[in-house]
Amino acid sequence: MSIPNFKHALPVTRAQDFAAWYQAVVSEADLAEESGVRGSMVIRPWGYGIWERIQKLMDARIKAAGVENCYFPLFIPLSYFAKEADHVDGFAKEMAVVTHHRLKMIDGKLSPDPEAKLEEPLIVRPTSETIIGAAMARWVQSWRDLPLLVNQWANVVRWEMRTRMFLRTTEFLWQEGHTAHATAEDARAETMRALEMYRDFAETALAMPVVAGEKPENERFPGAVATYSIEAMMQDGKALQAGTSHYLGTGFAEAAGIKYQDAEGGQQFAHTTSWGTTTRMIGGVIMVHGDDDGLRCPPMIAPYQVVIVPMLRDNDEDAAVLAYCEDLARALGEVDVFREPLRVLLDRKPLKASNKRWAWVKKGAPIIVEVGGRDVAGGNVSVLRRDRLYNETGKTASAIVPRGDFVASAAETLRDIQASLYGEAKTRLDANLRRDVTDKAALAAAFAGDKPGWVEVEWAKPTGAALDAVEEWLKGEKLTLRNTPLDAAPATGQCIFTGEKAVERVIVGRSY
Amino acid sequence: MSIPNFKHALPVTRAQDFAAWYQAVVSEADLAEESGVRGSMVIRPWGYGIWERIQKLMDARIKAAGVENCYFPLFIPLSYFAKEADHVDGFAKEMAVVTHHRLKMIDGKLSPDPEAKLEEPLIVRPTSETIIGAAMARWVQSWRDLPLLVNQWANVVRWEMRTRMFLRTTEFLWQEGHTAHATAEDARAETMRALEMYRDFAETALAMPVVAGEKPENERFPGAVATYSIEAMMQDGKALQAGTSHYLGTGFAEAAGIKYQDAEGGQQFAHTTSWGTTTRMIGGVIMVHGDDDGLRCPPMIAPYQVVIVPMLRDNDEDAAVLAYCEDLARALGEVDVFREPLRVLLDRKPLKASNKRWAWVKKGAPIIVEVGGRDVAGGNVSVLRRDRLYNETGKTASAIVPRGDFVASAAETLRDIQASLYGEAKTRLDANLRRDVTDKAALAAAFAGDKPGWVEVEWAKPTGAALDAVEEWLKGEKLTLRNTPLDAAPATGQCIFTGEKAVERVIVGRSY
Repeated sequence: MSIPNFKHALPVTRAQDFAAWYQAVVSEADLAEESGVRGSMVIRPWGYGIWERIQKLMDARIKAAGVENCYFPLFIPLSYFAKEADHVDGFAKEMAVVTHHRLKMIDGKLSPDPEAKLEEPLIVRPTSETIIGAAMARWVQSWRDLPLLVNQWANVVRWEMRTRMFLRTTEFLWQEGHTAHATAEDARAETMRALEMYRDFAETALAMPVVAGEKPENERFPGAVATYSIEAMMQDGKALQAGTSHYLGTGFAEAAGIKYQDAEGGQQFAHTTSWGTTTRMIGGVIMVHGDDDGLRCPPMIAPYQVVIVPMLRDNDEDAAVLAYCEDLARALGEVDVFREPLRVLLDRKPLKASNKRWAWVKKGAPIIVEVGGRDVAGGNVSVLRRDRLYNETGKTASAIVPRGDFVASAAETLRDIQASLYGEAKTRLDANLRRDVTDKAALAAAFAGDKPGWVEVEWAKPTGAALDAVEEWLKGEKLTLRNTPLDAAPATGQCIFTGEKAVERVIVGRSY
Repeated sequence: MSIPNFKHALPVTRAQDFAAWYQAVVSEADLAEESGVRGSMVIRPWGYGIWERIQKLMDARIKAAGVENCYFPLFIPLSYFAKEADHVDGFAKEMAVVTHHRLKMIDGKLSPDPEAKLEEPLIVRPTSETIIGAAMARWVQSWRDLPLLVNQWANVVRWEMRTRMFLRTTEFLWQEGHTAHATAEDARAETMRALEMYRDFAETALAMPVVAGEKPENERFPGAVATYSIEAMMQDGKALQAGTSHYLGTGFAEAAGIKYQDAEGGQQFAHTTSWGTTTRMIGGVIMVHGDDDGLRCPPMIAPYQVVIVPMLRDNDEDAAVLAYCEDLARALGEVDVFREPLRVLLDRKPLKASNKRWAWVKKGAPIIVEVGGRDVAGGNVSVLRRDRLYNETGKTASAIVPRGDFVASAAETLRDIQASLYGEAKTRLDANLRRDVTDKAALAAAFAGDKPGWVEVEWAKPTGAALDAVEEWLKGEKLTLRNTPLDAAPATGQCIFTGEKAVERVIVGRSY
């Protein structure tokens, strides 16, 4: 059976225009689309299926850490925000504000009813520290109530001026963990636990290698004492912040009144943390694993891991082909992979087999199996691995395999695809992360001509105005500080920016 | 081992004040609490855990019907609503309206920034027919694209004047299914499929018997051609509408432009449906299954089905007790019940065993197991079934059982609890649903003195002004029409309201 060459079936390749390629994959893989509402997207079934997989796997990790899911209100009274000055400064410019609770016909036009104006405006949550802090203040009385560990899966709204699907949307979906602790030490340990959970999740579930580290002072979450991130390298070499974890000190506890009686009877403010990951991760998966034929979805988060496409010819062989496919789907459904039943779809849509196959290639189903009359006769299946569409000569690499062998090796093949996607991305990250740059001119040159990648440099960790000056210079080069990797080597030389003695290493790169 | 008598440990009993009892259960079982934001609640871990179970079981049914999950924007432009006149009339009075996208300090007060006023106000979705209709109009071109079956799990906002936790909140969580079909017949079939899915879900998963039927004309969803509901009887005899399914005709398709080319090449409007269930179901579970000791949670939706409480005495027996409990938890975790692994919790909280037991009774864990040193020595466990706390003499009915026997029968016991909760509720419904009332005076008398229950009467299904008159009379008696049961006997007599020849039977009752 021959499969047409898929190359360049998307309207644009990565090399031609990475940003346009990204939009094409989002659209052609049925992941999401513009909704007609400014900055908001419709997440389509395949994209939402990936999100459901992410939710399931992340939620299991969150629960395993003893964190309990709750649900807090969408609307936060404006006064709650005003209590934490840095926090409100950080978000005031991008808040959606509810001011009325009724519409009325006025001069023939449906309008907010002036008589239903709210006494206090309500903010559509951009993040929930303030409203969850108010609940924690009710729940925490004694040291025995700590640690208090909660999480919610929710939608949040930040009024972004420039939006891009999955990466930056006015409304997005996320999980936000919020915890309160008796001591700074406990809260810092929780901050790092969440960061490590995200690192492991990104690398294991998303097959996306990341660098975990602390954000510089002026990239902190508004109101945080310390912010940590995981940063992933996209195929264009840019960095995507794919998850953050914040140690909030006692600032939010003081604003909300989260106090506890310690073992000695004294009153103390709790130390809080928050940490979140969002639908943005799907954008990262696209830009890390996608190719010129569309998405390549890591098997752990693929809504379907194996898709069976029957090749029907409107003749009397069809019934046998379908029966064979149903039996194959049943057998695959009994296979376990990554400690879950394998997810298999028999695609019965009334479309031509080649169109269906092509649609699944674009969506990135990890394994596509085609079955025609000849396969049934020979007891075979035709197997295409999405991560290796082509052989060395550029032909599609589908292989005719005995059905039993395919079923027996399906779990191993999926594990291999997951590992190979990770390996490919890790090799790229390692190859494009330079550590040999020691002066500003060389740093600028390292990014000349849109050369992809990051540079890890030594710096003195300047603060205040000195840090502002560094960021100003970087901005001129269209560069940003990403984070100071936790596992970086110790600094031994001079700060690339100030010439002072360096204290640690920081990653510089372009970013989303 | 003796367990104190729990009777009346809640501050109020059902008989004393049903509404106050309801609030007490919501609070004492850690289900939800007031958030400080008008009409919005915080759903606490045990309440949210029940919602997660409901989501999981309902989602499986939705997916099994071939419906795909998506996600649509929270904000809907006002103009989308204006397109369907009946729809906007129905919702305009309870809409939260976003008018600004930024805050600004004005006269020392953080306020909506007048320079960031939206050109067109955005509505926080009260329901998503209009925004999903806009997407369907993009997705549907040909008869081959139909049926189009989507669902979303989301939060919605309706600005209710009087709110009550779970039953009627400004913001609530729900699933909303939306489908488009080529013909009225197909769309009506889908409407009935969803209704039957809800009936079966309520009776199977929630152990809550319901009556499925059509709502009278003036209780229809705004814009619908026909609305169906499932109605459950609470312990005070009132009706709770626990799920609705709507046939929308072509009205929404015409407003949004959902058109398709039929097999003959002609242009047709699609026929659409929508159907939803909400966090309100949790309120129903409380009022159907709760008793004077708190919630009794049906095992299928209980976050934990068995809770193990170790009785520790701060002595050297404790290690053996804990090891015994851990082993028991492991063994129970390997049991399958309702086709899932049994959910077991070993409660390690540093609290007195009697306090923990009492907390789990209030939360309604189906089986509470206590283990003390004597149980370990004898190889036993002390088992308390939440649905049968007391024996005939009013003593707590905990039973000492050999550990092996308990594990071997745990699944069967949970199935029995599920069945017995359903049976109890069904007996109550049947006993309190009268069908022998044939005149208005008797109908009013049937509800005199807050007598609980419903009355199914024959009626002529009046419309327009005649129906208004019926509702007016009922309103005077604080009664409402619930629905016309699908499985009711045929009408044979006269309409109880108009004296005309009756055409069907309708349920009359008080309602939430």
